[in-house]
Amino acid sequence: MRSLGAKPLAQPAPVWVIGTYFEDDRPNMMTAAWGGICCSDPPCVQVSLRKATATYHNIMRNKAFTVNVPSAEFMEKSDYVGMVSGKDADKFKVTGLTPQKSDLVDAPYVAEFPMVLECSLIKPVEIGLHTLFIGEIKDVKVQEQFVDGSHADMAEIKPIIFAPGSRRYYTVGDQIGQAFSSGRACMRNGE
Amino acid sequence: MRSLGAKPLAQPAPVWVIGTYFEDDRPNMMTAAWGGICCSDPPCVQVSLRKATATYHNIMRNKAFTVNVPSAEFMEKSDYVGMVSGKDADKFKVTGLTPQKSDLVDAPYVAEFPMVLECSLIKPVEIGLHTLFIGEIKDVKVQEQFVDGSHADMAEIKPIIFAPGSRRYYTVGDQIGQAFSSGRACMRNGE
Repeated sequence: MRSLGAKPLAQPAPVWVIGTYFEDDRPNMMTAAWGGICCSDPPCVQVSLRKATATYHNIMRNKAFTVNVPSAEFMEKSDYVGMVSGKDADKFKVTGLTPQKSDLVDAPYVAEFPMVLECSLIKPVEIGLHTLFIGEIKDVKVQEQFVDGSHADMAEIKPIIFAPGSRRYYTVGDQIGQAFSSGRACMRNGE
Repeated sequence: MRSLGAKPLAQPAPVWVIGTYFEDDRPNMMTAAWGGICCSDPPCVQVSLRKATATYHNIMRNKAFTVNVPSAEFMEKSDYVGMVSGKDADKFKVTGLTPQKSDLVDAPYVAEFPMVLECSLIKPVEIGLHTLFIGEIKDVKVQEQFVDGSHADMAEIKPIIFAPGSRRYYTVGDQIGQAFSSGRACMRNGE
């Protein structure tokens, strides 16, 4: 195997848009790929942000944020949201996306996106360049057409996949298996 | 939007196989989907595990683990690795996968997988059912045929995408954009 060095290259990474309010209640959003689910009970998600971002300070102040999952059709808008600071531009106005005030936490979510998670900050964890924010998921909201029983159909939502290193965006491809079921073929081998 | 309740449904999630050693130096691996990159400098990745797992105790004792990225062809084996405890079965033997001792950290990696990250534990963070382990990435190793300049080609590695809730596995689909570039279309609109 070839050594590529000490780099954050783990695949795959999500593309999530983090919603927060500024001190004057203006809504802001930024794109983050350093994140992931981190607990089932209480249900929690982590996003990791640099102190240089407006979102870092908004979360520290308001103790709340939303995780908004864009579908592939929002790829250009989501990328733009990661390129510009909310201190310099009204990213909702530029993209035409709509900030919807959450009833559960002090943060706005993106009304047009297929899935949003409303999160209350449990705690920030300082690591280095990035601070890891653990948010308790107070609710998951999904647009009606993507609801599949008690969850959301990923093939329909079409979240964007990020490739660290190459910084390429990909779509989700075909279903290839079912967790806690596909592996039974190996269990038969082993028993 | 339809409310699905307080659940860990954020999409997409990775499928990673975590390599550790038992106290008697036997290699173990388990599958985890609660994880993500969490810092660029030092480069860090988090995986979140239940105390009930052998891997939790192995990481606490050895302060090290590997994150192994299976390609789609290893879907059944990776799923099996998440279904059975290493206390009950030699999962390397059953799957025919090879534990390779890391030179950098006290953990084994899966020799057949396209990408592995060797991680040294920075700290565990107790949340609830899961404990979040922050690991500093000491090296990323990639099989030669997947190396693309200074990174790894995700379209070739074909990591598995996990859909929380439905628990379905998906492949990576087509490239749809380039981060910090595709969003320029919106910048032109806004300026």
